[in-house]
Amino acid sequence: MNTRIYRIDELKTFAYSVFLKMGCPEADALLAADALLAADVRGIDSHGVARLSGYVRLWEAKRINPAPAIRIVHESPGTATIDGDAGLGLVVAPKAMTIAIEKAKACGTGWVAVRNSNHFGIAGYHTMLALEHDMIGWAMTNASPLVAPTFSTERLLGTNPISVAIPAGKQPPFVLDMATTTAANGKLEILQRKNKEAPLGWIQTKEGKPSTNPHELKAGGALIPLGSDYEHGSHKGYGLGAMVDILSAVLSGANYGPWVPPFVAFLQPPTDPVGTGIGHFLGAMRVDAFRPAEEFKQHMDNWIERFRSAKTTEGNLAVLIHGDPERQMTDQRLKEGVELNPAVEKDLKELAARLGLSL
Amino acid sequence: MNTRIYRIDELKTFAYSVFLKMGCPEADALLAADALLAADVRGIDSHGVARLSGYVRLWEAKRINPAPAIRIVHESPGTATIDGDAGLGLVVAPKAMTIAIEKAKACGTGWVAVRNSNHFGIAGYHTMLALEHDMIGWAMTNASPLVAPTFSTERLLGTNPISVAIPAGKQPPFVLDMATTTAANGKLEILQRKNKEAPLGWIQTKEGKPSTNPHELKAGGALIPLGSDYEHGSHKGYGLGAMVDILSAVLSGANYGPWVPPFVAFLQPPTDPVGTGIGHFLGAMRVDAFRPAEEFKQHMDNWIERFRSAKTTEGNLAVLIHGDPERQMTDQRLKEGVELNPAVEKDLKELAARLGLSL
Repeated sequence: MNTRIYRIDELKTFAYSVFLKMGCPEADALLAADALLAADVRGIDSHGVARLSGYVRLWEAKRINPAPAIRIVHESPGTATIDGDAGLGLVVAPKAMTIAIEKAKACGTGWVAVRNSNHFGIAGYHTMLALEHDMIGWAMTNASPLVAPTFSTERLLGTNPISVAIPAGKQPPFVLDMATTTAANGKLEILQRKNKEAPLGWIQTKEGKPSTNPHELKAGGALIPLGSDYEHGSHKGYGLGAMVDILSAVLSGANYGPWVPPFVAFLQPPTDPVGTGIGHFLGAMRVDAFRPAEEFKQHMDNWIERFRSAKTTEGNLAVLIHGDPERQMTDQRLKEGVELNPAVEKDLKELAARLGLSL
Repeated sequence: MNTRIYRIDELKTFAYSVFLKMGCPEADALLAADALLAADVRGIDSHGVARLSGYVRLWEAKRINPAPAIRIVHESPGTATIDGDAGLGLVVAPKAMTIAIEKAKACGTGWVAVRNSNHFGIAGYHTMLALEHDMIGWAMTNASPLVAPTFSTERLLGTNPISVAIPAGKQPPFVLDMATTTAANGKLEILQRKNKEAPLGWIQTKEGKPSTNPHELKAGGALIPLGSDYEHGSHKGYGLGAMVDILSAVLSGANYGPWVPPFVAFLQPPTDPVGTGIGHFLGAMRVDAFRPAEEFKQHMDNWIERFRSAKTTEGNLAVLIHGDPERQMTDQRLKEGVELNPAVEKDLKELAARLGLSL
């Protein structure tokens, strides 16, 4: 049971205070809190305040540097590679996105590969930063290895998300933000809490057999790439996850594949790293580098309206545009606040007590 | 039954002669034949000579311009939008890729949106053009609407492929080339010829019910986005297909969604076009705009070797790297030639007779 409903702004203030306690400069703490809470606001509960104590534990383990000297280590007119100096991904990624946006102003598009970073929250937060500039935003990141490639029993990839945000005119933007697995880890966590079975095609056992046990990962099992099995195209999900890993880490000089350090502080990073930290890949494309922005946005509106008004299958009220469910959740949560998962609430209260903060 | 085995080079010469008969300039006919045959060489039989008479019929219907004046209609230092002048996509796309590569030399990455084009063959042909420049190649295209978005009964998207080709060192390159549907149309055509049922999750009926009938599309059914159903992430496949459509067509000024003109000449294009022709989106990223190329390639080799040596699930001999099956097929077909599908062979012989050519 939940003790009460939390307003988004008080959760954001709490996260801000926690980041300050970690030693983040004020501006970074504000940015990190904003990026973190973007997940709760949009209903991606697995990536918001639920992860706050995880970041703290990584900082306590000296695996997150609260005051990083983020620097460009390689660049061209339209690209850069940056070293995040083991900072919070929540801070490093928006700064990388700012560089991508500046590069795009000059060259039409800008791309930034990031190494030596940490978990960056939801990819959609970063891509949406491009929208106000009439740019298309791109974001990818690699992550702790929990996913087995097609035909493999080994966990070699993370849930490696891809987000692409595309501005429209009167219509809200198109915001794709997807894990390259059949189901993201967050969905599994919901089933774990409820002790419910997972659909076939989400997870496999340690031996690579189909499983419906949401706790299978603890026993050495793995998440399955988008597609679920070879017959239904899991090699495509594997290919997308691989592409994200390569662009985020092989291109930037971060750790890739099974060498990606785990998010949880109680697991040690591999002792034979192939790079530094985890990696991201961010991009910005100026719409008017291809076509006048107003013309593009009118056609985006037409695209969105046509798809949204498509005839639906039985029992479904509407064909959705990517970003619709998250916008609906945003409206609701900004108004009504959020009911935290009881385990998350307990965890946050303990964190508050430990750091001498109140919640 | 097949009359005989065909050598790849004789099929390429035949395609070249056909493109010359259509009125293509010699260099364009050579390029188109090379791009078309790349599909047969790599084992993507649905996109090679099997489509040759389709191109001819589109030319006869005056929907393909054999001698297009391809021109840049909009550009920035790192981007361009080109009008393909209703040319063969097989010619327009490689020329667009050449522009992307030149832009990348200057800016680090180069991106070209293409409108007023036609079917461009396999996406992988175009992305692999970047490899010899130590660049990462990107290619997407939209296509005739055969795919229903999640929760929709209407066909609003094509199989909209994504290809990304990434160079390695001693190892062969990573070449992802995937339709954003559970199964590409070519796989369905194989089942149609054999009169075999399709697995559940590939297609739906006109009413949006699951179907295993490979002929369902003729009855108004649709292909399903990668993921197969909502529970298994079909909204992700839908999102990827939508992104391809938007980048290829809304950004370039081509037709998008249900307005994309059909590949088959016996179906008329929509009478209310929202752009011109079909659209592509191509890109090239210079590896050394992010990291020294040799360093990158060493890590790519390490990445590939680690994944290729992963422990396999029961009954599977190896974890594959994207591009492996096509390379194996290439070795075989360049050596042994190709046994055409009897219907394709008959179609090509009729085409030869009609154009006064021999095969």
